[in-house]
Amino acid sequence: MQIGVLCSGGDAPGMNAAVLGTADTSEAEVVFIKNGYRGIYERTFAFPNAIEIEASQAGAAIGTARFDEFRQPKTRAEIAKILHEEGLDALVVAGGNGSWEGARLLKAETGFPVIVVPATIDNDFPNTDYTLGFDSALDCISNAVDDLILTARSHHRVFLLEVMGRKSFELAESAAYANFSIPVLDESKDNLDRIAENVNKQGRSQILIVPEGLPDKQDAIEYLSEKIELETKYLNLSYLQRGAKPTTYDRLIGHRFGAEAISYLLANQDGYLGRKDGKIMLSNW
Amino acid sequence: MQIGVLCSGGDAPGMNAAVLGTADTSEAEVVFIKNGYRGIYERTFAFPNAIEIEASQAGAAIGTARFDEFRQPKTRAEIAKILHEEGLDALVVAGGNGSWEGARLLKAETGFPVIVVPATIDNDFPNTDYTLGFDSALDCISNAVDDLILTARSHHRVFLLEVMGRKSFELAESAAYANFSIPVLDESKDNLDRIAENVNKQGRSQILIVPEGLPDKQDAIEYLSEKIELETKYLNLSYLQRGAKPTTYDRLIGHRFGAEAISYLLANQDGYLGRKDGKIMLSNW
Amino acid sequence: MQIGVLCSGGDAPGMNAAVLGTADTSEAEVVFIKNGYRGIYERTFAFPNAIEIEASQAGAAIGTARFDEFRQPKTRAEIAKILHEEGLDALVVAGGNGSWEGARLLKAETGFPVIVVPATIDNDFPNTDYTLGFDSALDCISNAVDDLILTARSHHRVFLLEVMGRKSFELAESAAYANFSIPVLDESKDNLDRIAENVNKQGRSQILIVPEGLPDKQDAIEYLSEKIELETKYLNLSYLQRGAKPTTYDRLIGHRFGAEAISYLLANQDGYLGRKDGKIMLSNW
Amino acid sequence: MQIGVLCSGGDAPGMNAAVLGTADTSEAEVVFIKNGYRGIYERTFAFPNAIEIEASQAGAAIGTARFDEFRQPKTRAEIAKILHEEGLDALVVAGGNGSWEGARLLKAETGFPVIVVPATIDNDFPNTDYTLGFDSALDCISNAVDDLILTARSHHRVFLLEVMGRKSFELAESAAYANFSIPVLDESKDNLDRIAENVNKQGRSQILIVPEGLPDKQDAIEYLSEKIELETKYLNLSYLQRGAKPTTYDRLIGHRFGAEAISYLLANQDGYLGRKDGKIMLSNW
Repeated sequence: MQIGVLCSGGDAPGMNAAVLGTADTSEAEVVFIKNGYRGIYERTFAFPNAIEIEASQAGAAIGTARFDEFRQPKTRAEIAKILHEEGLDALVVAGGNGSWEGARLLKAETGFPVIVVPATIDNDFPNTDYTLGFDSALDCISNAVDDLILTARSHHRVFLLEVMGRKSFELAESAAYANFSIPVLDESKDNLDRIAENVNKQGRSQILIVPEGLPDKQDAIEYLSEKIELETKYLNLSYLQRGAKPTTYDRLIGHRFGAEAISYLLANQDGYLGRKDGKIMLSNW
Repeated sequence: MQIGVLCSGGDAPGMNAAVLGTADTSEAEVVFIKNGYRGIYERTFAFPNAIEIEASQAGAAIGTARFDEFRQPKTRAEIAKILHEEGLDALVVAGGNGSWEGARLLKAETGFPVIVVPATIDNDFPNTDYTLGFDSALDCISNAVDDLILTARSHHRVFLLEVMGRKSFELAESAAYANFSIPVLDESKDNLDRIAENVNKQGRSQILIVPEGLPDKQDAIEYLSEKIELETKYLNLSYLQRGAKPTTYDRLIGHRFGAEAISYLLANQDGYLGRKDGKIMLSNW
Repeated sequence: MQIGVLCSGGDAPGMNAAVLGTADTSEAEVVFIKNGYRGIYERTFAFPNAIEIEASQAGAAIGTARFDEFRQPKTRAEIAKILHEEGLDALVVAGGNGSWEGARLLKAETGFPVIVVPATIDNDFPNTDYTLGFDSALDCISNAVDDLILTARSHHRVFLLEVMGRKSFELAESAAYANFSIPVLDESKDNLDRIAENVNKQGRSQILIVPEGLPDKQDAIEYLSEKIELETKYLNLSYLQRGAKPTTYDRLIGHRFGAEAISYLLANQDGYLGRKDGKIMLSNW
Repeated sequence: MQIGVLCSGGDAPGMNAAVLGTADTSEAEVVFIKNGYRGIYERTFAFPNAIEIEASQAGAAIGTARFDEFRQPKTRAEIAKILHEEGLDALVVAGGNGSWEGARLLKAETGFPVIVVPATIDNDFPNTDYTLGFDSALDCISNAVDDLILTARSHHRVFLLEVMGRKSFELAESAAYANFSIPVLDESKDNLDRIAENVNKQGRSQILIVPEGLPDKQDAIEYLSEKIELETKYLNLSYLQRGAKPTTYDRLIGHRFGAEAISYLLANQDGYLGRKDGKIMLSNW
């Protein structure tokens, strides 16, 4: 069996471990495809030991990309044709829910077997409790909180720290819970007033964690800055979260996701992986 | 309800988050007890905001200790008496399986309600998939592997890296799996020969991970050093694993364990906490 | 001799080591003053072992502040009076060039002996090659470059990374030199064109480092984003640089600065410290 | 001018920056030589962009080695012959004082121009205040101290931390000074008694830093462990210091050393580089 492996969409820490994990097997021949679905189109293939991949590094060493043409059925048909021409029997795709949708359509329209490994720092993906990269992005936020609280305390300041997650608030919520910080999960005046009051009552330096997807985010930030009596500063962690060094947890889960993807394909099953109740399982298309 | 909180036995990263987590509530009055069971004896109590505790720091800010006298029924009876005298209604103990055994006997003999939070980097504790601190110790090992592989490659060397875990091999196994390194989990000549052959065939720098609890460990290390053709070096990570900065994961789980312990006590339940299938649950004594 | 020690102005990593360094001596009695010059006013004093100070932590554990009233001669006269009342014979001030100016005037107008320890991540201070905190802020930038380049390469992107330094470009210049990145030190069209051309010719992911003090910064960033053919992303490291964990270098220099300040005062000399040609020396007022 | 660049002897963090720094120039053609002097023998050459080298990584990406045959005049003559055959006009060698001695003899006996870049974590090299890698190794020790003190305090323990440096005590001395720890720089009974007394008087957790080159080290460690009343634990940082992530400082100095080496060779000067009084300078052979 010949299996192609690619990363698609935004990169997530742990993707490298997942990619390396697919190459554990000796029962299938694994080929890496560079730069996402586009790499199939451009036939940029590489054998595992031709690329230096480190599980310890963020990003996707084989490259990842958003490939807009893939939204068209015509392109997907062409992609399937190329995969057959190249002798590939199945595909492993590491990516987020955009990549999932593409893979679903590829399978539905062309019958080509695909397994998707959920990989996005946003933790928003069908039928899984966990997506690869979430823990590393969280750790990046915690490290920032650890650093910022020290400069904050020196000046009796409050930081408003914006974190990623797109529409999901999980990064903000978990980061706040882990670090005994204050999440701003609701832009209602009531909630903001309650937070400001709480901060004012305590009178201590605090880190407020604001998800990027908060509606009326800019207004909320300004409102809080006005209501909070201590001086406030705003900081956006931005792409540092994507570049976060993969935690051991993400390396572990990545390795497992990659290896399990191959196992399922060898057993002629496809779909998308997830972790539910602490166990890795496959959802069928 | 007045609840005492202490750490017992070896320290584990995440203990501080667990301790802080017990103070979330406004329904109970929480008192911290310094230096383990001995702190009850010596009545070294402190209110939560009298001690600076950071979830981001390793160790147990309220102190932890092994208290040998606690093995005697007489001491346990005395401890229960002091707890009553001090007006405490229940106890939260963060610790490993030695602390669990002490808590079990205290409850059995005196009826004093105790909840144990599983906290040890070794991941060896009854009825739980996870013990607090394991993830942080793992991350410490991964960081060492990341660093050592670079100096190893410069010299075409192989490192034999000893890691903690007492009789449990989980740290070694998970660290190796996460980092695509080689675990040494069995001291049989067959296994060691297979490993050495594998390393020699690949001819590349590698990190071999050796659990401290491997029987005949010294012999195994010497045997491997002899059989492996590249130059080998040995390194013991030792207490760096205990001092590892708590990962976000351990801060999260710690916070949850601490908060859940209080919830159960408020609901008049005791026993020991664990995480099974991704969920936190209580095992009864 | 009784010596007061305070931090003033913006915090800089290494301030804690400098403060701890003043307490090395047994020949003088050292008193810490909280929250800058304002702390004299409010008489918030503390003996060294009453405050937990860690050389390993960013910020100023004794607090720092900008104290606008100190710009008025009247306030400075009052401050000197309080210092005499409290039995203090001299002052050590860790701070940047604003704090230097305040100290200079205090000495000039009241004769009160002051030594300033140069502490600011900006490396802009009279008569010194180095200001405390610069190396730690640099390390923060390098860590960000290390992380960002990995996510950048995954997507074939270019990052425009804004760094601190106020009017000084030293952080940007040194960070770029150390990391083989590209500094944007000049907003002229010629320079920006040359940079864009260079990036386009190489066609590889790059980190461009932009000092906060670059004139017409916003225009320059937009111009570069347009001219560079790869996708560009912008990120501002902001206060993470202030919260950077003190490097050993800053702990060393901080310790030395603090200890030397006391030595000079004990020898009845005052002024401001600096490091020239690798040596610590005193400039007289 | 064609210039060969190699690393020799033990690796030191910052070597990669030095190697990359030699490739800054467009006035000379730089060729990297793999695995030290042996690489000349085996003619393992590579052009700069054929090897992935990261200034952010420890080790020597082009490989380094101890080459015992190089101690013989015959080998050195042969090496010079090969260098001429390969069209090389000069050599840059990054290494410690062993490599310096080899380079000196090569020059003295064959007249082949060599410049040595001082690179060793030990800071023992003729005519320089600083050797590349020292700052990174120091940072590794500081990080260990930061971690160990937290687990130490939890148990009221004292750590005896062994650090590298061969016969030089500079790493131990600087690490202790930067971290307000206690260096063990003298194995005399008087000194050890004084240290133990001091620790006992303070009664607090401490990190004692022991240089590997301390005479009668084992006895000193045992003596201290006995005399100190708190429980003591011993830990050897070992090769983690070699694998330390290069600090910005070492990347900066490395880059400069590499670039300066080429500049001097282009100006027909050779010898060995050093930093004195904060400036980089050349000592002639």
